Amino acid sequence: MKISSENYTPAIREQLMQQVQMQMSEKRFRHVLGVEEMAVALAKKYGCCPNKASIAALAHDYAKERSDDAFIFMIKKLKMDPDLLNWDNAIWHGIVGAEFVRQELGIEDEEILQAIRVHTTGAAKMSLLDQVIYVADYVEPNRDFPGVQEARQLALTNLAAAVAYETKHTLQFLLKKELPIYPKTIETYNQWVVKK
Amino acid sequence: MKISSENYTPAIREQLMQQVQMQMSEKRFRHVLGVEEMAVALAKKYGCCPNKASIAALAHDYAKERSDDAFIFMIKKLKMDPDLLNWDNAIWHGIVGAEFVRQELGIEDEEILQAIRVHTTGAAKMSLLDQVIYVADYVEPNRDFPGVQEARQLALTNLAAAVAYETKHTLQFLLKKELPIYPKTIETYNQWVVKK
Repeated sequence: MKISSENYTPAIREQLMQQVQMQMSEKRFRHVLGVEEMAVALAKKYGCCPNKASIAALAHDYAKERSDDAFIFMIKKLKMDPDLLNWDNAIWHGIVGAEFVRQELGIEDEEILQAIRVHTTGAAKMSLLDQVIYVADYVEPNRDFPGVQEARQLALTNLAAAVAYETKHTLQFLLKKELPIYPKTIETYNQWVVKK
Repeated sequence: MKISSENYTPAIREQLMQQVQMQMSEKRFRHVLGVEEMAVALAKKYGCCPNKASIAALAHDYAKERSDDAFIFMIKKLKMDPDLLNWDNAIWHGIVGAEFVRQELGIEDEEILQAIRVHTTGAAKMSLLDQVIYVADYVEPNRDFPGVQEARQLALTNLAAAVAYETKHTLQFLLKKELPIYPKTIETYNQWVVKK
């Protein structure tokens, strides 16, 4: 059956949680529940739909443990941008993962799917829901890294500032580790971090 | 008259130097001479044409002190990528500056013009001359910033490692200052810095 913010009863939420749980390690599932808790809190605080936040949060890492082959198959099947083939799970699990969510979980709400697509890289244009999921993923209660307290504080006081903080610090982390940077993340940076 | 690596006599070099000097402050001209000195040394060391290195180095900042209006006019006149209009002098003086060099200095050697185009951002694919100018601009003797000694050392021992060092540290500087990052710089980073 389709899952939407309109028919989202506690029983449907339970069913969605179980479908998600079956796809991942216990540790990742705890993370997902943390993101949901944080996302619903942020949605209520900033005035976007808590049901959409709950659904997007529960589904955001749904495809994270799929094989590379499964992602490559999906990219080719849906004729997605061939440049995606130059990237890996870190990028695929959001942008391509949303297609697994749509096909296997019956979630067709474009706002929810878009929030899943951009949850890792952000985007120059982000809806309130996009921002909520992007930030909740970074500051959920199980996260523990230098700066998470400051990010959490920002999340609860100024969502756009939290988006900026997360983007800047993610880029600094990638640079320090000499890990690949997806060009979309730079669009996010130029829009959200750079002073106009 | 046209300037090329074949007809590049000391007299023509003098004339080019004077044309360049007239376009900029004394301080910038000192920098240009420093880049030339370093570029010629690197060209000899790594086996690319010292005359091309000298010409490209002398001309690399030729348009740096042009007005924004002059760059905008050139971008529109040559129907260059309209996205350039979203950027500023930092990006224009290389990519668009090469067109001023071509039109006003009679330099038509595509290798030289390309080295001028990419001297600020780098590129995923860089010729030896591109690398020489990119690195010489960063480590010329007048430069003084934390890390310049290490960059200079690398330039003299491993040109590709110097390209990587410069790219990584430039990005770290831009991030720290929250300054815009041109997407091409990320292509440079992904190619030259990230371990494959």
